[in-house]
Amino acid sequence: MFSGAQISLYPMTGDFVGVITSALSALDPYRERLRIETDDVSTLLVGPPEVLFPAMRDLFSAAAGTGVHCVLSATISRGCPGEPDDAICQSGQFEGPLAALSERQASALDAVRTAPDMGVSSVAQFSLYVMGQGDHMAEIYGCIDFLKQSGTFEKSKHFATKLSGDTGALFATLEQGFCRFGPPEGHVTIDLTVSANSPSAR
Amino acid sequence: MFSGAQISLYPMTGDFVGVITSALSALDPYRERLRIETDDVSTLLVGPPEVLFPAMRDLFSAAAGTGVHCVLSATISRGCPGEPDDAICQSGQFEGPLAALSERQASALDAVRTAPDMGVSSVAQFSLYVMGQGDHMAEIYGCIDFLKQSGTFEKSKHFATKLSGDTGALFATLEQGFCRFGPPEGHVTIDLTVSANSPSAR
Repeated sequence: MFSGAQISLYPMTGDFVGVITSALSALDPYRERLRIETDDVSTLLVGPPEVLFPAMRDLFSAAAGTGVHCVLSATISRGCPGEPDDAICQSGQFEGPLAALSERQASALDAVRTAPDMGVSSVAQFSLYVMGQGDHMAEIYGCIDFLKQSGTFEKSKHFATKLSGDTGALFATLEQGFCRFGPPEGHVTIDLTVSANSPSAR
Repeated sequence: MFSGAQISLYPMTGDFVGVITSALSALDPYRERLRIETDDVSTLLVGPPEVLFPAMRDLFSAAAGTGVHCVLSATISRGCPGEPDDAICQSGQFEGPLAALSERQASALDAVRTAPDMGVSSVAQFSLYVMGQGDHMAEIYGCIDFLKQSGTFEKSKHFATKLSGDTGALFATLEQGFCRFGPPEGHVTIDLTVSANSPSAR
């Protein structure tokens, strides 16, 4: 199953190029397990979710750790029927039958509880889309139930859910939402915004 | 049908607050036809697509017209079954039976051809999601056919399509993609990034 993300990092400073360039070294531990391509709008990361989410977490944490107001925006996708398969995306976690929703929610909560502490606070706003089946809202409501128990839930907004907390717990929550809800071989996407150091933050 | 967007504007400058504040006056002509709510991550615009897209276009064009590298990121949605209806969203364009795909493509092309020239060049990258039906990819491929003839198409990317041109034509293309594909009462969303003045642009 093809999976990956188009990501962009926006440091709100005249030295945005410098902040981006210095944060990029945070991707080094992941480079062998990702295919990476950059243009003027975004950087493509192709790889399995268990590599994608930690890579995005470390990149964003490095940029946000400078203290500059930074935003990471990402379009994350798995199982798009229009995308060719790629060996680098291989992951064991989507095999076998779909477990009951309550069981998946419990596993997701465990993963968030054991997430590393990155020492960087931020907020995340995201929309989860489950496509190509009639009852897509059931899986989305199941995911929202998990989010409300995750410890990172801040509030529901129109079209999106807002989380807040340490980037370790945040990206673990996002990874669990992405992997455990919707059919294992289905087409699932996340539209994500992560923000740190905003002067508007309350 | 409920419709709207969560939008964020990212000027890559230390004076990002100033650029955002001065661009906000571009929304003034639309304020009576939109419900607007802001927090530290995004601004919610609730209203029909024929108001939403011109409002986003004028806001982004005002910010990008400063010459600063600016990005507008938006999560745009219509017909989400989890959202209550709102009188401000009323629009005549989703009534009646769904026309043939070729007819919708022709109307969409006409709308892009007659779009105003804003005098601001930019690029747009977006993903269109059509949910809750088995053949969602047919509508997406129909939209891609339209995009390739629109004059704004630049390239297909993994998970997204990239457009380039004047912001007038770009936002007209986006509005047509959003309104004319997928069932009239269906749940359709766009994950959008618009960028101008990037030093990486070719």
